[in-house]
Amino acid sequence: MQTWEAIAARRNVREFSARPVLPAELDRILEAGRRAPSANNRQHRDFVLCTERDQLQALAQNWQWGRHVAGSAATVVVVVPVPATSRDAELDMFDAGQAVMAMMLAAADLGIGSGHASVGDQAQLRRLLGVPESHQGVCMVALGYPAGQPLAPLKKVDRRPFAEVVHRGKW
Amino acid sequence: MQTWEAIAARRNVREFSARPVLPAELDRILEAGRRAPSANNRQHRDFVLCTERDQLQALAQNWQWGRHVAGSAATVVVVVPVPATSRDAELDMFDAGQAVMAMMLAAADLGIGSGHASVGDQAQLRRLLGVPESHQGVCMVALGYPAGQPLAPLKKVDRRPFAEVVHRGKW
Repeated sequence: MQTWEAIAARRNVREFSARPVLPAELDRILEAGRRAPSANNRQHRDFVLCTERDQLQALAQNWQWGRHVAGSAATVVVVVPVPATSRDAELDMFDAGQAVMAMMLAAADLGIGSGHASVGDQAQLRRLLGVPESHQGVCMVALGYPAGQPLAPLKKVDRRPFAEVVHRGKW
Repeated sequence: MQTWEAIAARRNVREFSARPVLPAELDRILEAGRRAPSANNRQHRDFVLCTERDQLQALAQNWQWGRHVAGSAATVVVVVPVPATSRDAELDMFDAGQAVMAMMLAAADLGIGSGHASVGDQAQLRRLLGVPESHQGVCMVALGYPAGQPLAPLKKVDRRPFAEVVHRGKW
């Protein structure tokens, strides 16, 4: 897919078809996240890839807006070190956002939908995935081919108007 | 460009050629940012587009690692509301990271390099861009055609190994 097509086709997908996502596709999506930039290239992120149905169903209970994880073909849990300062926390979140966006666009490029959700229950996440106390979950990126309409560039997006968001030279 | 090519070709660019970036190219980059997802679709972000050399030179003084802004063809300053809570701050940073990544990939797709830097001096930013007290700068995304090698997929990336970053099923 052309880059612009992937950018325009990405949408939140929360209902997934039974079509599997191939290991090579998952690796490409994860590689996009690995390549993302970070503050001082510190790469404060690890990705836990979950593909077993039991685990996905348990993960879906982690957060009230993460129920769609249960039906995903795979979910990537983004994990960062427990931040030492609020500034660290903010930089790690910015960097996680960059990595997640790269993964979602790499997925869209393959026709694979994505729907991300926060992590709610850190203790449950640690138990379920064996994440050490030194680290915490940031979000879960559910992946799968869409159950409904395939990905295609969106004609209308539910966003503030361009002229309101973009200021030229001055606020 | 194909999406994967843009993902693989994106690198930090801090030296820019004199080749101008066209208004239509800038609008496409900004549109990629506008389309990015956000927590509850709250879209806590505004983009201030700077293209005047005087303003870019002044912006470059805002932060010690932002000197390359001076020579950019254009710089997008990402602005968010002053957060009410630390959780708000973290969500807004995550969302800003998503928008910035989308803009950098849209730029790479056009062969345009990008190099982002934090905002250091909020007071200077407010003075220079007329940003209200209710808002603050998150980062500056400098844009321009690279002075050196054109963008092309990177064969080697300075990142932690894939097998270290990616955990399968369990940490």
